[in-house]
Amino acid sequence: MFKRILIANRGEIALRIVRCCREMGIESVVAFSTADRESLPVMEATDSICIGPAAASESYLNPEIIVQAAKQKHCDAIHPGYGFLSENADFADLCEENGIVFIGPSGAIIRHMGDKQAARKLMMEHQVPVVPGSKELLENADQAVAMAEQIGYPVMLKASAGGGGKGMRRAFNEEEVRSAFETAKAEARAAFGNDDMYMEKLIVDPHHIEFQILADCEGNTVYLGERDCSIQKNNQKLLEESPSAVLTPQLRKEMGETAVRAAKAAGYYSAGTVEFILDASGAYYFIEMNTRIQVEHPVTEEITGIDLIREQIRIALGMKLGFTQDEIGIEKHAIECRINALTPGTIQFVHFPSGYGVRIESHLFTGYQVSPYYDSMIAKVIVSGRTRLEAIRRLRRVLEEIVIDGIKTNYDFMYLLTYHPVFLKGNYTTGFWEQNHEQMEDWLKEGIRSEAG
Amino acid sequence: MFKRILIANRGEIALRIVRCCREMGIESVVAFSTADRESLPVMEATDSICIGPAAASESYLNPEIIVQAAKQKHCDAIHPGYGFLSENADFADLCEENGIVFIGPSGAIIRHMGDKQAARKLMMEHQVPVVPGSKELLENADQAVAMAEQIGYPVMLKASAGGGGKGMRRAFNEEEVRSAFETAKAEARAAFGNDDMYMEKLIVDPHHIEFQILADCEGNTVYLGERDCSIQKNNQKLLEESPSAVLTPQLRKEMGETAVRAAKAAGYYSAGTVEFILDASGAYYFIEMNTRIQVEHPVTEEITGIDLIREQIRIALGMKLGFTQDEIGIEKHAIECRINALTPGTIQFVHFPSGYGVRIESHLFTGYQVSPYYDSMIAKVIVSGRTRLEAIRRLRRVLEEIVIDGIKTNYDFMYLLTYHPVFLKGNYTTGFWEQNHEQMEDWLKEGIRSEAG
Repeated sequence: MFKRILIANRGEIALRIVRCCREMGIESVVAFSTADRESLPVMEATDSICIGPAAASESYLNPEIIVQAAKQKHCDAIHPGYGFLSENADFADLCEENGIVFIGPSGAIIRHMGDKQAARKLMMEHQVPVVPGSKELLENADQAVAMAEQIGYPVMLKASAGGGGKGMRRAFNEEEVRSAFETAKAEARAAFGNDDMYMEKLIVDPHHIEFQILADCEGNTVYLGERDCSIQKNNQKLLEESPSAVLTPQLRKEMGETAVRAAKAAGYYSAGTVEFILDASGAYYFIEMNTRIQVEHPVTEEITGIDLIREQIRIALGMKLGFTQDEIGIEKHAIECRINALTPGTIQFVHFPSGYGVRIESHLFTGYQVSPYYDSMIAKVIVSGRTRLEAIRRLRRVLEEIVIDGIKTNYDFMYLLTYHPVFLKGNYTTGFWEQNHEQMEDWLKEGIRSEAG
Repeated sequence: MFKRILIANRGEIALRIVRCCREMGIESVVAFSTADRESLPVMEATDSICIGPAAASESYLNPEIIVQAAKQKHCDAIHPGYGFLSENADFADLCEENGIVFIGPSGAIIRHMGDKQAARKLMMEHQVPVVPGSKELLENADQAVAMAEQIGYPVMLKASAGGGGKGMRRAFNEEEVRSAFETAKAEARAAFGNDDMYMEKLIVDPHHIEFQILADCEGNTVYLGERDCSIQKNNQKLLEESPSAVLTPQLRKEMGETAVRAAKAAGYYSAGTVEFILDASGAYYFIEMNTRIQVEHPVTEEITGIDLIREQIRIALGMKLGFTQDEIGIEKHAIECRINALTPGTIQFVHFPSGYGVRIESHLFTGYQVSPYYDSMIAKVIVSGRTRLEAIRRLRRVLEEIVIDGIKTNYDFMYLLTYHPVFLKGNYTTGFWEQNHEQMEDWLKEGIRSEAG
């Protein structure tokens, strides 16, 4: 067992990991920037250490400082959470070189799956379907145009190091390819320090379906059902649920087994997510593998009863999975709704309800200052029920009870979503936001929210 | 489906029922006393109605006023919660006479099971083991002494209308019988308006094991596992868990089937609880049936995934159970810890944590005034895990995070309990408090709490 784990993250995921450590009898040390000194994870951890100023590049994104902090605090492992350094292969390597266990896969695996083109090639070699597109990097706009004409419009330009929607652009004709190539490249350079670009066929209006996998160091690999993450705004997920209303049991099994094949192809261990897009015809394509815990992991925890952070820690200790694929039963429906701050500011009053089938993951408290430096997510509301409708009604009930005073949030939009006919049907696609947000904003202006409530 | 349910209760259970109604699409009306005007259930319900002053006898315990309130607010059903009028047969009858559905069993069933001697007789007729004792009411102290000599000391004097430890006295010799008879009789008269007394053999240091049952109006009856409620102070439960560490799978099945037999003997429908005591030899005895939802029902909900309030409402609508005994699977361990106020006062600050495997049932909020008029319970902390140890560690973690400022609570004692070697072993008995509380109070004085934390 680990004695002390350094948590190289902040906010709700740092708190989630602190809690898991406490429950496992492991000491936790939260590495925090000066902006997060007065935060719940810092208060709840066994110990904490300041790693620099608010700017993430000088604190949460600085591998050397974090490894140094872990050594100073005598930690034998580091949990990176999501975002920040969680998919930074060099950081994983640096941990290993310093005799500290990185809770996640090896640097080599992260590097391989993080290189979108290399991952794509590996998947093709293992009969995992990928979106038709270029196998090579695109040197310039002319090459991009030629490739687009070869695979057929519309196309998607993607940064090889991309993630979170950054460095991605759609193009429906030559002119758009030329302008998108330059802007996406510049964006990728700024965001990732790497502007390698490639191209894929644009699958219009697909479903975003991802499979959670767990793999131990002996190669035992299982999938824990899917998450439908099609409700997104600018490629940022807003709501995730499982099971997806658009999968048949047979397609679920086929995609799950494909996800396991993808993970095995990568020699993967730890928790990971294999992301697919699924089109209207039922065809699905691998898009990427996330080599870390995801924001939406509680959805899977609620339907399977498996604590994914605990499993990550166990696997990092070299322990075998305690269950087989056949033992993973799913009889519930779970939904996660992300509450985001639209403005920074001080929380004047916060009240989160609890109750049957409800879980809140949040670092908020009355008096907390939401800083402008980091991700805007301030709470995850997770509900579960025996049926999808039961979970949706529970979600409405919980949203109706929540009070967050002092800052603007996306609360009204999320609440209205729980009444939207397309959402209720369950067969929404990643185009949902684009197709519906203007109408929904009109509804909000007209006060539909209070009527629905 | 019901259109509107009147909730004839307060505090956390009223909030629990309001939430369930919202999730089922039923309107809720909370009947409140003036002391509860500023309470969460009142705020969260569809509507509310004041039924009188703080004194329960003039509000929550007044059947006519409550039925009148239900009619005035056009409610088609009343949920009584626990305590107050929940086991008042006349109230159930009055609801029926007024064309309002009482969510619970019929007045006749409540009356039969509420009469401890009649219930005992019925159980004996159906081969449900009962504690050896008098079948007849005791007229006077002389009769009581004669009975005690017949069944053998030690004995327990009990009020026929009793509950919650009131009107109960142990006696180890003739002198004690004589004095206990008078004091218990007086207490019963004051508490229940009924001073009928009977006697049972005192089972020394038993386990309190109760079985949750659900029965529909067609006689389909299932048990949903047991709850071990042996940790009590003055016959008031403090912590409940399931499964119990002292039951073998075979004994669980036998007692569960006995509980179903007891319920069927009573012609029972709705949710109910069959309470047993279990001695060191593995012999068990029926003590009483509670014909209502219990405080500790969430323990069962967490291990079975069945929403008991929802089931009560469904059964009251005449719906059939949606599952059979074989479909009730238990693969988790759940614990409920009751947080009680030791003094009334204003909550200066409250913070409840959430997270994986955590559920809080509480009506508290920052600024809430804990009134001196009612039950002192202010929160139930319910945790679940794959194993008992996981659940205990989660309970510790949650207790460590909870902040309740402004009033004194039993928090320190409950936290210390989670480290007590007898509790950790799991084979504690109803004598736990008497045997350990002085030592535990010494430990608290010595600051063990902060060390453990």
